[in-house]
Amino acid sequence: MKTLSTTTPSFEADFTALLARASVAPEVSGVVREIIERVRTEGDVALLDYIARFDKQTLTAESLRVTAEEIEAALAQTPEVLSEALAIAARRIELFHKTQLPRDIEFTDEAGITCGMRWGALDAVGLYVPGGKAAYPSSVLMNAIPAKVAGVGRIAMVVPAPGRVLNPYVLAAAHAAGITEIYRVGGAQAVAALAYGTATIKRVDRIVGPGNAYVAEAKRQVFGQVGIDSIAGPSEVLIIADEGADPTQLAYDLLAQAEHDEDAQSILVTTSASLAEAVANEVTRALETLPRKQIARTSWDRHGAIILVQDEDEAVDIANRVAPEHLQLMLIDPAPIFSKVRHAGAVFLGRNTPEAMGDYIIGPNHVLPTSGTARFASGLSVYDFMKRTTYAAVPGQALAALGPHAVTLAKAEGLTAHAQSIAVRLPKD
Amino acid sequence: MKTLSTTTPSFEADFTALLARASVAPEVSGVVREIIERVRTEGDVALLDYIARFDKQTLTAESLRVTAEEIEAALAQTPEVLSEALAIAARRIELFHKTQLPRDIEFTDEAGITCGMRWGALDAVGLYVPGGKAAYPSSVLMNAIPAKVAGVGRIAMVVPAPGRVLNPYVLAAAHAAGITEIYRVGGAQAVAALAYGTATIKRVDRIVGPGNAYVAEAKRQVFGQVGIDSIAGPSEVLIIADEGADPTQLAYDLLAQAEHDEDAQSILVTTSASLAEAVANEVTRALETLPRKQIARTSWDRHGAIILVQDEDEAVDIANRVAPEHLQLMLIDPAPIFSKVRHAGAVFLGRNTPEAMGDYIIGPNHVLPTSGTARFASGLSVYDFMKRTTYAAVPGQALAALGPHAVTLAKAEGLTAHAQSIAVRLPKD
Repeated sequence: MKTLSTTTPSFEADFTALLARASVAPEVSGVVREIIERVRTEGDVALLDYIARFDKQTLTAESLRVTAEEIEAALAQTPEVLSEALAIAARRIELFHKTQLPRDIEFTDEAGITCGMRWGALDAVGLYVPGGKAAYPSSVLMNAIPAKVAGVGRIAMVVPAPGRVLNPYVLAAAHAAGITEIYRVGGAQAVAALAYGTATIKRVDRIVGPGNAYVAEAKRQVFGQVGIDSIAGPSEVLIIADEGADPTQLAYDLLAQAEHDEDAQSILVTTSASLAEAVANEVTRALETLPRKQIARTSWDRHGAIILVQDEDEAVDIANRVAPEHLQLMLIDPAPIFSKVRHAGAVFLGRNTPEAMGDYIIGPNHVLPTSGTARFASGLSVYDFMKRTTYAAVPGQALAALGPHAVTLAKAEGLTAHAQSIAVRLPKD
Repeated sequence: MKTLSTTTPSFEADFTALLARASVAPEVSGVVREIIERVRTEGDVALLDYIARFDKQTLTAESLRVTAEEIEAALAQTPEVLSEALAIAARRIELFHKTQLPRDIEFTDEAGITCGMRWGALDAVGLYVPGGKAAYPSSVLMNAIPAKVAGVGRIAMVVPAPGRVLNPYVLAAAHAAGITEIYRVGGAQAVAALAYGTATIKRVDRIVGPGNAYVAEAKRQVFGQVGIDSIAGPSEVLIIADEGADPTQLAYDLLAQAEHDEDAQSILVTTSASLAEAVANEVTRALETLPRKQIARTSWDRHGAIILVQDEDEAVDIANRVAPEHLQLMLIDPAPIFSKVRHAGAVFLGRNTPEAMGDYIIGPNHVLPTSGTARFASGLSVYDFMKRTTYAAVPGQALAALGPHAVTLAKAEGLTAHAQSIAVRLPKD
C-alpha cells in the first residue's frame, strides 16, 4: 500500500504511477481463433470434443442441456435463507431496471414530416457464467434480469461443468431470474456456439457475462457477428471519508474490493491523517481474518493507496480523475460532493451504504465500467438488451420544400444517384 | 444482380449466399500497432513524421491546427445554396436529436432506499473525418451534432490533408456544426493522438467517425483507453415495393446505395414480377447516367438482388432476416408492414421518402448499423456521447432489514470481506 499526499512535490508522478495497473494477458488469440473456426464449421461435434478435452467429461448433444430435474435438485440443495435472499435480490433488481425502460418517440415537425424512434428488445441473448469458484449467483441475477426486463424473448445460459459438477447456487440464481435454457459448456467454444449456433445451441444476438482471458478474447473475435458487453478489466473502489468515519468499516470496504482479485485496486481519500493511520492499521488486522487473505493482501500491497488531501474539492477532483467503478462517499452529508462527481460507475452515499450492499441487494446493476472507463462507459442496463430503429415519412409538400436542399448536398458530395433518387420524385414545373 | 423467388426449392440456399458478403480486409494490425506505440511515446514528433511520410507535407506542431482564417476562406469558397442547405440540415438534425435526450431517474423505495441514475455528457470527443473524395460534409453534421446536443464540452476533429489540401465543404460543415478545433492529420496516427494525447492534441474520451481499414484497426486497438463507435461494414438498402411503385424511382434508390461502395448491397423485394422486370431494365439504363457507374455496376452485379415473394408477410420476414441498415417501404400504406418490422437501422415510409432524404436532411442519424447488425445495434445518437452513473443511499433501518440478506449472498459466494463490510455496520442485538 502506498500513502500519497497532494502536498508533496512528487504527487502527480505518484498518482500517475498508481493508476498504471498493467495486468499481463496471456497470448490466446491464435488458440481462440482455431476453437471458434472449428465450432463454426463442425458445430456440436467440435463442442463435445472440446468439452471432453478441457472439462474431462464425455457428453452427447442430448446431454449438453441441463435438465429440469438437475435444476430441481439444485434448488433442493439450496438453503432456505439463500433462496429467500436470491428472491429478494431478484425482485429489487427487477424493480430498479424497470425504471430504465425508455419511451418511444414520434412527432410531426413544421415541415409536415413525421419522424420517430422505436425501441425494441433483442430476440435472443447469451449469458456466459464462469465455472468453479468464480461462479457468482449474484452475477447471474445482474446479467439476466435487465435482459428479462427489456423483453428479450430467449436467454441461453452457458456454464462450464468440469467433471460434470455445477454450482447449485448458480442454478438457483438462474431459476430466480427465470432462466430455463442452460448448457454445460464454457470457454471460447461456448462463445462460438452462442455466436454462430450449432444443431443444439441456437445462435443469439448478443453475449454478456464475465469470463477468463479465453472467453474475453472469444467475445472480441465474434464481435460484429453478435453484440458483446464491454470486456471487464480489474475492478476498483475509491472511498472518500472524513474524520468521523469508522476505521473498521472502511478497512472491510477496502478489503471487499481487494479480495476479488490480485489486480483489484482500493483507494481511500481523506483529509484526516489520523483516520488514514487508523484505517491502515485496521486493514492489517482485518486481513488476518479473511479466508481470501492472500489475494486481498497482494491487491492491497501492490495497488492499494491512501491519499491525503487538503479539502473536499481536492478529494472530488481525484475521484473524477480516477473515474472509479465504485465510489463510496462515507460522509455525514455526501450531497455537496456527489453533485461534483462527474465520472464514476456507481456511487454509494453515506456511511450506511457500503458497496457490498450494491453488489447484492440494492437494485442498480453491479456490472460496471472498470479501470477508468467510467469516463465514457456505463453500467449494464436494459439499454444493453434493446436497440432503436428510427423512421420517417415525408409527405409530398415536404419533399418539394426540402428535397432541393438534399439534392444540393448530394451533388456537393458527388453522389449523383442520391441526387437523382430525390430529383425524379420532385414535381416538374 | 441475382433474381430470387421464394417459391423455388433453392431459395434458402440462394438467400444465404446473397447475405454472405465477405470483404477482404488487408492485414494491417502490425503496422497500426507500431504507429500507435510511436505516437503514444513520442507525441507530436511521431505525428509530424507520419504526416510527412503519408501526406507528403512538412508541418510543425504549431501548424497542425487549422486556423480560423482557413475556415473563413473555406466558407467564402462555399456556394450560398450549399451553405443554406448545410444550415437547414444542421438545424433539423439538432431538432431530432434533442428529442432523444434522456431523463434522470430518482426514487425512494418501500425499504426507504433512495436510488437513482444520472446521465452526464462525455468531457471530450474526437471526430475522425476521412480526407479526399470520401470526405462527406453530411457525415460531419451527423457525427458532431449529437455530441453537441448531448452536451459534450470539447469536440476535436481530425482530417488528413494530403498536400495540405482540405475539402472546403467539410470545413463549412464543421462550421455549421459549431466545431472550431480541427487538426490536419488522419490515419492511425490521428486516432492514437486522440486516444493518448500529445502536446498539441489533448486526449479525448471517445472517438467516432468513419475511416479506412487502418483507421478502423486503430480504433479497435485503442478501445478501452477510449470509447469508439462501431466499426462500419459495407452498407445496404432493402426496398419493399408493390405493383404501383415507379420503376425509375426504385432504380435510383437501389443505385444510391450501390454508388457508395463496390461492397454495398441493394435488394428489392416485391410480389410483382412485372415491377421486378421493369426495375431491372431501369437500373441498366440509369447506370449509364452515373459518374460513379463503375462502382455502382460492380456493387449491383455482385451483390444486388430482386427477390420475388408471394405476399407482404414473406416480404417483411425477409426484411427481418436481412436486418438492413436502410429499409424503404415504397407502398401506398406502409403502416401494416412497418408494424411487423423488428430489425432495421432506419425505415423510410412511403413513396415520397427515398433513403437519400434521410442521408441529408430529415433529421434522424445516417450513421447506422450495417451488415445485419441491426439485430442488436442502433444508429448513432445522443446516448453515444453520454454515460450513466447509478447511485444509492441506504438509511440505517434499510441496512438492518436488507443487510442480512446481502450477508447471506456474500457468504454463499465465499466473499468474507463483502459480508463483513455489511455485518460491522449492523446494529448489535
